[in-house]
Amino acid sequence: MKRHTISVLVENHPGVLARIAGLFSGRGFNIESLSVGETEDPTASRMTVVVRGDDVILEQITKQLNKIVDVIKVSDITKEKFIERELVLIKVHTEGKSRSEILQIVDIFRARIVDVAPKTVTIEATGTEDKVQALVNMLRPFGIREMARTGCVALTRATK
Amino acid sequence: MKRHTISVLVENHPGVLARIAGLFSGRGFNIESLSVGETEDPTASRMTVVVRGDDVILEQITKQLNKIVDVIKVSDITKEKFIERELVLIKVHTEGKSRSEILQIVDIFRARIVDVAPKTVTIEATGTEDKVQALVNMLRPFGIREMARTGCVALTRATK
Repeated sequence: MKRHTISVLVENHPGVLARIAGLFSGRGFNIESLSVGETEDPTASRMTVVVRGDDVILEQITKQLNKIVDVIKVSDITKEKFIERELVLIKVHTEGKSRSEILQIVDIFRARIVDVAPKTVTIEATGTEDKVQALVNMLRPFGIREMARTGCVALTRATK
Repeated sequence: MKRHTISVLVENHPGVLARIAGLFSGRGFNIESLSVGETEDPTASRMTVVVRGDDVILEQITKQLNKIVDVIKVSDITKEKFIERELVLIKVHTEGKSRSEILQIVDIFRARIVDVAPKTVTIEATGTEDKVQALVNMLRPFGIREMARTGCVALTRATK
């Protein structure tokens, strides 16, 4: 099933998020990631939803989304050239020799150490979903204690 | 009203997100930011919700959340020492002289240029909500064309 990145600009009213999330789950779409944050306009938020699903059903959802009063704009940016980024915080187990190995990986992925404790380090990294996944795979053997991923946000490229 | 960062570990079942979002909006809490992403466990997702509200009502919401079958763990991490990060993509207008000024700001905030076009640059930056807000404020005078923020994710600090 194809992966779609949907960008939904909505008015900041309570309940909008629940309605939109309900729309996706009502159609049996599993939301892979979702993020909601402020935009250039203080009265609006941008939701970025990554879903896997059928093109036909996705088109139906887009139509339904456009009917919601608080929805300003819906775009399936997977159809355009776009920049996609995700942020991850990873708390990984480390002891003795493994620390320098982890530091090397952090370096290769241009990630950052944001906390160090006797038996763990916490790493911040950004990138496309694939890059973040590659980092997670590299760190898994050391023992990931905790992890939080933001889900993707995306903007269309200005370059044609 | 106090700002709370709530971390909710949930089973990956369709509809969970809509139920949780509904719970917050049903109590009149306005969600400031929300992000949902994968965790160290492939069957679970972590939702990070930033809300402003009364301590008493928030405690009621936490109790309600704990009653949802698919909710594994709820924590108000604002009560502990924590690391919080957000990612932002900003497409900002630029022409002639303003480009070098923007590059300087990017440098100061340890941000990255991820796309350049004749009249815009797209910037990726991470940090606490305050840092991201400060960057946005610095760039606003140049003309922000588009912006997408992930909303915060947070992990507790391992250092005591």
